[in-house]
Amino acid sequence: MNKVRVGIIGAGRIGRLHAENLAHYVPEAELLWVADVVEEPARATAERLGITHWTTDYREVLADPKVEAVLICTSTDTHAEIIQAAAAAQKHIFCEKPLALDLYEIEKSLRAVKRAGVLLQVGFHRRFDPHFRRLQELLEAGEIGKPWLLKITSYDPAPPPISYVKVSGGIFLDMTIHDFDMARFLLGDVEEVYATGDVLVDPEIGKAGDVDTAIVTLKFKSGALGVITNCRKATYGHDQRIEVLGEKGGLFAENPLPHVTRMANESGYRTSPLHYFFVERYREAYIAEMKAFVEAVREEREPPVTGLDGKIPVVMGYAAKRSLTEHRPVRISEIDPSLG
Amino acid sequence: MNKVRVGIIGAGRIGRLHAENLAHYVPEAELLWVADVVEEPARATAERLGITHWTTDYREVLADPKVEAVLICTSTDTHAEIIQAAAAAQKHIFCEKPLALDLYEIEKSLRAVKRAGVLLQVGFHRRFDPHFRRLQELLEAGEIGKPWLLKITSYDPAPPPISYVKVSGGIFLDMTIHDFDMARFLLGDVEEVYATGDVLVDPEIGKAGDVDTAIVTLKFKSGALGVITNCRKATYGHDQRIEVLGEKGGLFAENPLPHVTRMANESGYRTSPLHYFFVERYREAYIAEMKAFVEAVREEREPPVTGLDGKIPVVMGYAAKRSLTEHRPVRISEIDPSLG
Amino acid sequence: MNKVRVGIIGAGRIGRLHAENLAHYVPEAELLWVADVVEEPARATAERLGITHWTTDYREVLADPKVEAVLICTSTDTHAEIIQAAAAAQKHIFCEKPLALDLYEIEKSLRAVKRAGVLLQVGFHRRFDPHFRRLQELLEAGEIGKPWLLKITSYDPAPPPISYVKVSGGIFLDMTIHDFDMARFLLGDVEEVYATGDVLVDPEIGKAGDVDTAIVTLKFKSGALGVITNCRKATYGHDQRIEVLGEKGGLFAENPLPHVTRMANESGYRTSPLHYFFVERYREAYIAEMKAFVEAVREEREPPVTGLDGKIPVVMGYAAKRSLTEHRPVRISEIDPSLG
Amino acid sequence: MNKVRVGIIGAGRIGRLHAENLAHYVPEAELLWVADVVEEPARATAERLGITHWTTDYREVLADPKVEAVLICTSTDTHAEIIQAAAAAQKHIFCEKPLALDLYEIEKSLRAVKRAGVLLQVGFHRRFDPHFRRLQELLEAGEIGKPWLLKITSYDPAPPPISYVKVSGGIFLDMTIHDFDMARFLLGDVEEVYATGDVLVDPEIGKAGDVDTAIVTLKFKSGALGVITNCRKATYGHDQRIEVLGEKGGLFAENPLPHVTRMANESGYRTSPLHYFFVERYREAYIAEMKAFVEAVREEREPPVTGLDGKIPVVMGYAAKRSLTEHRPVRISEIDPSLG
Repeated sequence: MNKVRVGIIGAGRIGRLHAENLAHYVPEAELLWVADVVEEPARATAERLGITHWTTDYREVLADPKVEAVLICTSTDTHAEIIQAAAAAQKHIFCEKPLALDLYEIEKSLRAVKRAGVLLQVGFHRRFDPHFRRLQELLEAGEIGKPWLLKITSYDPAPPPISYVKVSGGIFLDMTIHDFDMARFLLGDVEEVYATGDVLVDPEIGKAGDVDTAIVTLKFKSGALGVITNCRKATYGHDQRIEVLGEKGGLFAENPLPHVTRMANESGYRTSPLHYFFVERYREAYIAEMKAFVEAVREEREPPVTGLDGKIPVVMGYAAKRSLTEHRPVRISEIDPSLG
Repeated sequence: MNKVRVGIIGAGRIGRLHAENLAHYVPEAELLWVADVVEEPARATAERLGITHWTTDYREVLADPKVEAVLICTSTDTHAEIIQAAAAAQKHIFCEKPLALDLYEIEKSLRAVKRAGVLLQVGFHRRFDPHFRRLQELLEAGEIGKPWLLKITSYDPAPPPISYVKVSGGIFLDMTIHDFDMARFLLGDVEEVYATGDVLVDPEIGKAGDVDTAIVTLKFKSGALGVITNCRKATYGHDQRIEVLGEKGGLFAENPLPHVTRMANESGYRTSPLHYFFVERYREAYIAEMKAFVEAVREEREPPVTGLDGKIPVVMGYAAKRSLTEHRPVRISEIDPSLG
Repeated sequence: MNKVRVGIIGAGRIGRLHAENLAHYVPEAELLWVADVVEEPARATAERLGITHWTTDYREVLADPKVEAVLICTSTDTHAEIIQAAAAAQKHIFCEKPLALDLYEIEKSLRAVKRAGVLLQVGFHRRFDPHFRRLQELLEAGEIGKPWLLKITSYDPAPPPISYVKVSGGIFLDMTIHDFDMARFLLGDVEEVYATGDVLVDPEIGKAGDVDTAIVTLKFKSGALGVITNCRKATYGHDQRIEVLGEKGGLFAENPLPHVTRMANESGYRTSPLHYFFVERYREAYIAEMKAFVEAVREEREPPVTGLDGKIPVVMGYAAKRSLTEHRPVRISEIDPSLG
Repeated sequence: MNKVRVGIIGAGRIGRLHAENLAHYVPEAELLWVADVVEEPARATAERLGITHWTTDYREVLADPKVEAVLICTSTDTHAEIIQAAAAAQKHIFCEKPLALDLYEIEKSLRAVKRAGVLLQVGFHRRFDPHFRRLQELLEAGEIGKPWLLKITSYDPAPPPISYVKVSGGIFLDMTIHDFDMARFLLGDVEEVYATGDVLVDPEIGKAGDVDTAIVTLKFKSGALGVITNCRKATYGHDQRIEVLGEKGGLFAENPLPHVTRMANESGYRTSPLHYFFVERYREAYIAEMKAFVEAVREEREPPVTGLDGKIPVVMGYAAKRSLTEHRPVRISEIDPSLG
């Protein structure tokens, strides 16, 4: 068996998560490098996982001819540059979402990838969640016939630090982007969005120029309708549910509970709260995502989440942003006429 | 429409419940009499429900030629006498459970009923519960094939007064008797029981010569096995569930909740406790039971819970009692050879 | 006890339902009259429930000095006229929703009611559903703190006849109107709506000038956000759920099931579908609604759903209609400046 | 970090499972050896997991001074011999259940372990299941006060091969043994058992001298009561639930579902069936079990499931067997007076 030799660029929380998943659950991959602009996380991750090389300069990773694929897990503003460099170095690429906040940079990156003929997978991990995937399979199998109405609930347990909010691109590009991708994964492309939102959780988020609670309605090209509800805070955990109503019935992906032990007394029955951390909530999804990428590289075929899949939710995010600002429905094609 | 003209004998809690159900939900019945040895409840019930006659002597009810059927809702020790008198007066009979604690009296009553050719229905209301009935229908429809294993959970929210415990005949004849009937309703006759039990809830129950927590295992004539768990106290309400495992699957009758509104916070999700009072838990069952009796009388056909159905659970209760005392499995035929 | 003497005007499905509920479950009321423009249902209902008087002319009911209150259960286009006549006759009024489709007629009716000093309750029965009421109580008790986000799911099992669709006023005035009332009941007044909708269930509904699937987002005066999803068809029954996310947690009113018996086999666990008919789904709500009206009349105090509560959802329906047509968010005050 | 150096003896299904779990999820352990009487699984497992040494003679493993601990995953009849040899070689021991079917051999093994001063953990993996563990923690924390009634449901999805049934020691020593351990884990030691059982699933099991469906009632030394229901077949999967009723309430460990996506249509709501394979159902439990053993060895302290914990359920199995045969309750002390 020839293992896929991988370099990880960015050893922050998500980079370390992928590194561990590759080391423990993806025997088809071999980790050769860990890079991070800061020395400590790069070295520590390498040592802990028994990875031979570490560096503070990702170009060293790209220069190693043994490396076949890289994971880009750095901060968003560096994604485009590294994608383009990796493509030039003929490395296959897994890049965390969002590809970039600048649509022009995304375009350049996708063109570089295409020109180089390398594979690119974008990090929309929720597509690999077993519960959502099951819903998608039942939908695709026609179990509820033609879908009419999609409802995505997506609440975080607690807001991120204000410093992060400021550079996140706003709720639609940071949080709703996952739901936009999920909407496309399940019901295909969207034609128009209408966003409403407000600052209800924390006034500091408002001062940072963002909203913390939002509702986005979607009109799909298929004619179906959709609605995404987002909130930066839900005390009971990471609430992530999907419903689809269709001509023959309904599909409901509920929240998996950390444990299914209930307690009953005079006050009623009590179950566990939801998973608090997304890394726990989506543990299986992250592993399956890595497996899928490594498999795509080994078999040299189109990854399950393409560059275009990475770009469109960013466009949708800008459409939602404009909708909120201009207080009117916005067509996707207003942001990117090529998606008309 | 000729209404079935009914007299109620016994205006305690259960008598009043049946009276109200007949008055409100069974338009096919007409209440003519309320009798109770105590004047006040008889008169008050009659007045409240607009019933013309009340009396402290049930023989007045039996003497009224317009009365077609009586409900016997008096204390257990009077059931046999009244059944026999009612049969002699050619009245159809609904009698609360248990028919009697004395098996010889039960025999005499059943013979009297047979001789008179009147109808007799015994008050095992749980057979009319929509959830249990649904389970029974699915079972009978063969949805899980041959049944192998029956599990009945039956906990009361709180023990009855000790004064009642003393005259109740003990947990097996007072509480488990419902579960014995349910077992027969679902899987047919039982061959042998083994009972274990202890005083865990309240030492006073032990002093009254009873246990408050019990497990009874059943061997059905069909070869299937069963187990009943009973407890006099469950802080979270009236816990009444049934499971059947069979060759093709399982059936599960859960507890209906008073309302299905949940609350979530850091401690998890919380639902309502269960119904506390059996009259709420079995509200629909009590109404359906009365409808069934009135319908049987109108159509002069065998009621859905017969005299024999009333007798056998008493026999099973004595078998369980002997099993607990003698610390060994006891065959039903040891108590009543005719049921061998 | 002095009973409230009631006349029912309109003996169609909903009129008969209220008549039966009053007869069986509201001993504080006495039904004196049943009126219907068609003789048969008036007479049949009177006979079946033992009501002395019936008529094809509702003015006879109003002319009877013994009648204290009337229920108006006729077709929508007659509500205003009858309300005004009843007010003039000094009768207290329960009127089915919607008060009228014409806002000017509503205004006239409310003024007539006010002038006459009679009580008026409007038929938003869902406020009396035990599950929704429980949610409202927990909300009001502050269990989840300040509410941020309301989600109402409201699907019918199957579309009404096209003939009805044509006179219904459209989905927002016929179906969403209940959800608008619920939104106000839970979170107070709404400032702005945005509606999107399409014809997905049945093209005939489109030909009748209506949509059959819709999403309405709401901005509450409190700052909270809301979303209502509607569809005229859900194969699995009457799907009616409510969620509220707030600063301290979440509240979830689920669908009550007709029975809680599950079946398991190789294909998984299967529960009952939902109630199909709204009269079953809201059986308890309809009874509680009648009790509340009769109690308000007896105690001569403001009913729990006032005339203004009857009017505002109609205004909201027109706002949603305009939003759909003009493809933009619409403020409630655009329809009725007095609600600014 | 000094890793615990482990040798695995027995590379059948469960041995390979532990090997993989150690390799992937227990970085504190290092696998040095795989032994199996058959060459192929030993070599293949070693190669797949990158383990340096493999052998068909477990004595080679014991002879390696670098080995600190061994996992005994061979067939039950060899456990005692290997335990004694491993103890003599001063290796710490993890041994799969049951320790042995012969109580005398168990005694000898425990004495050898004690004499050698090595650690012994027995493979009751269910104690490490997160759902059951949560229940145990809530129980221990006093959340329901004093426990009164324990109910364990434990059904396999399908019977094992008849060849296995013949050497398994019978259902009580093969299947119920896990439930006996769970009963002790939760409520402490048992005084008396009563077993009933029959051949309902497959007559071949009867011909092999065993039953396939059983109910075992337990009397705990604490006074509490318990009941275990077992069946060799449940079409809907591995059904493993636990309930405890106590003075302050109830605890319920339900079955975790492979995915929480439901589908609704005219037939109702449908969820996933249960996990079919125990390795999936108890995936997390097996990992946690290995972590616990390795940790105990590293810290040289008593493992969480001791030799005595391994022995007592075997004694309970013999008591249940005798109860079934002699058709009477049997005290544990009849089988082993030291447990009186």
